[in-house]
Amino acid sequence: MQAAGDAEREIARIEALGGRYLALGQGLYPRALAELDDAPPLLTVKGDTRLLDKPLVAIVGARNASAAACRFARQLAYDLGQHGAVVVSGLARGIDSAAHDGSLETGTIGVVAGGLDIFYPAENEARQKAMFERGLVIAEMPPGTEPRARHFPYRNRIIVGLTGGTVVVEAAPKSGSLITARLAAEAGREVMAVPGSPLDPRAQGCNQLIRQGATLVQNAHDVLEAVRPMQPRLASPHSPYEPGEPQWMDGDDGALGIVKELLGASPVPVDEIIRLSGAPSGAVQMALLELDLAGRLDRHAGGKVSIRPA
Amino acid sequence: MQAAGDAEREIARIEALGGRYLALGQGLYPRALAELDDAPPLLTVKGDTRLLDKPLVAIVGARNASAAACRFARQLAYDLGQHGAVVVSGLARGIDSAAHDGSLETGTIGVVAGGLDIFYPAENEARQKAMFERGLVIAEMPPGTEPRARHFPYRNRIIVGLTGGTVVVEAAPKSGSLITARLAAEAGREVMAVPGSPLDPRAQGCNQLIRQGATLVQNAHDVLEAVRPMQPRLASPHSPYEPGEPQWMDGDDGALGIVKELLGASPVPVDEIIRLSGAPSGAVQMALLELDLAGRLDRHAGGKVSIRPA
Repeated sequence: MQAAGDAEREIARIEALGGRYLALGQGLYPRALAELDDAPPLLTVKGDTRLLDKPLVAIVGARNASAAACRFARQLAYDLGQHGAVVVSGLARGIDSAAHDGSLETGTIGVVAGGLDIFYPAENEARQKAMFERGLVIAEMPPGTEPRARHFPYRNRIIVGLTGGTVVVEAAPKSGSLITARLAAEAGREVMAVPGSPLDPRAQGCNQLIRQGATLVQNAHDVLEAVRPMQPRLASPHSPYEPGEPQWMDGDDGALGIVKELLGASPVPVDEIIRLSGAPSGAVQMALLELDLAGRLDRHAGGKVSIRPA
Repeated sequence: MQAAGDAEREIARIEALGGRYLALGQGLYPRALAELDDAPPLLTVKGDTRLLDKPLVAIVGARNASAAACRFARQLAYDLGQHGAVVVSGLARGIDSAAHDGSLETGTIGVVAGGLDIFYPAENEARQKAMFERGLVIAEMPPGTEPRARHFPYRNRIIVGLTGGTVVVEAAPKSGSLITARLAAEAGREVMAVPGSPLDPRAQGCNQLIRQGATLVQNAHDVLEAVRPMQPRLASPHSPYEPGEPQWMDGDDGALGIVKELLGASPVPVDEIIRLSGAPSGAVQMALLELDLAGRLDRHAGGKVSIRPA
């Protein structure tokens, strides 16, 4: 139990940082995360909360990953961003950092194990500050909390809970990334892994995951194909959509039919499509993504899109 | 149609070579191969036909495979041999040759696309001759036939048909090895593939196979685990076993119960277990393999085995 004075000091600290609270079941709190049995009751966040409305994909992996795997993770995150997905990771060394770097321009969310104002590892201070400004950082622990070993599994469940699927890039057997993969599977989210040669010890964890049923992914296309069926669950709580309204959930179509009707040969802003459709922004983004994968969408400067004839 | 004189000359040529014929539905003709809709009516073979009674696993892959992949294939073949499996491949350059080399001491079967007496590629003459003496070479085409492109798919269906499963090691997209994998799947045999990094173009074919449902394998243990359920189909036509006798086919147990009873703490020759069990040698080998995987079998010099208490 915290004393009232502690709580007040904590709130003041978050406000001073420019952060805010998201409470389970209220306002901006991400619906997909709320589905977890052990959803965190309170999150502190700093950055662009609109990112929570987009299709979210997690990329995780080894802190001591090979340079090739880090390059791969950065490129994968970049490519996912180019297709409208936002990348979620844990702001750790190695794969996490590479994934954030690759998606900083298009949308990246970092979930830290300690407090929002703690930079861990210290070398990530500049990265985390950049994400305060241009991405989003999320913490469950109160400000000032130094991360401890026991915090990491809790942090990992948030990464998993936010997203439709988790991609594991290079992970040692029995590593934290494999625990994250297990949490994703338990939460009913897609588990994806990047394979490697059996001669490469760093590929053992991912190869094992694939043997256990994870989807082998080689590029952003494979990832998007895998998470597509999961994304309706990531519908935004911002929208007028309420559970029980069947139109977005019936069949696999989601908002696709309406979005197709709203699109034409002239580029229009995605925001306008979302507004006109009345659909959750996540559902609209998924519909756009689907058209993109089908080769029917053109993306233009200024966030505008147009459709090609079938 | 061949003239009678041609047939006689051909038979004389096989005899001079020290080879023999296996006819579909007769004698030593491998039962698993006979299950194919397009099983070859006549095979010519030279070497140790007893190898056909053992659990057979195919290893195939690129002719221009990397040195690392060839080393991997050789080691995999060696390890499979150490566990009682016989390795089948196509006597081509690259992965095929490595697989034969790794299993020459324990049992290797080469299926050639041309005639039994044709060495293709020429550099494989010594290897093929060694397999005449210490392994087994199989050909569908008459002696003297130079292999042509159209012969290779026919050859590949024999590799697939003989075995409970096919392992693909490094294959380019649209390569012959992937056609072999498709043939294996169509024949209801296990398809296995060795993964690689998405950054390695030579891994694309195998990774694609895994995405399509092939089992990811990293070592002999993975291979044996995958083919185990298929091996009852490889029961030998030598044995007193006849289709319709239920005892070897009921459940997953195969000959395991009887083999367990016959084994003790003192090493006994495998041949004796086969004789005493009255079971097909393939079924006995599979039961031994299962005990081996369970860590309950000790293998001794002279082909003897003993069981450890559970």
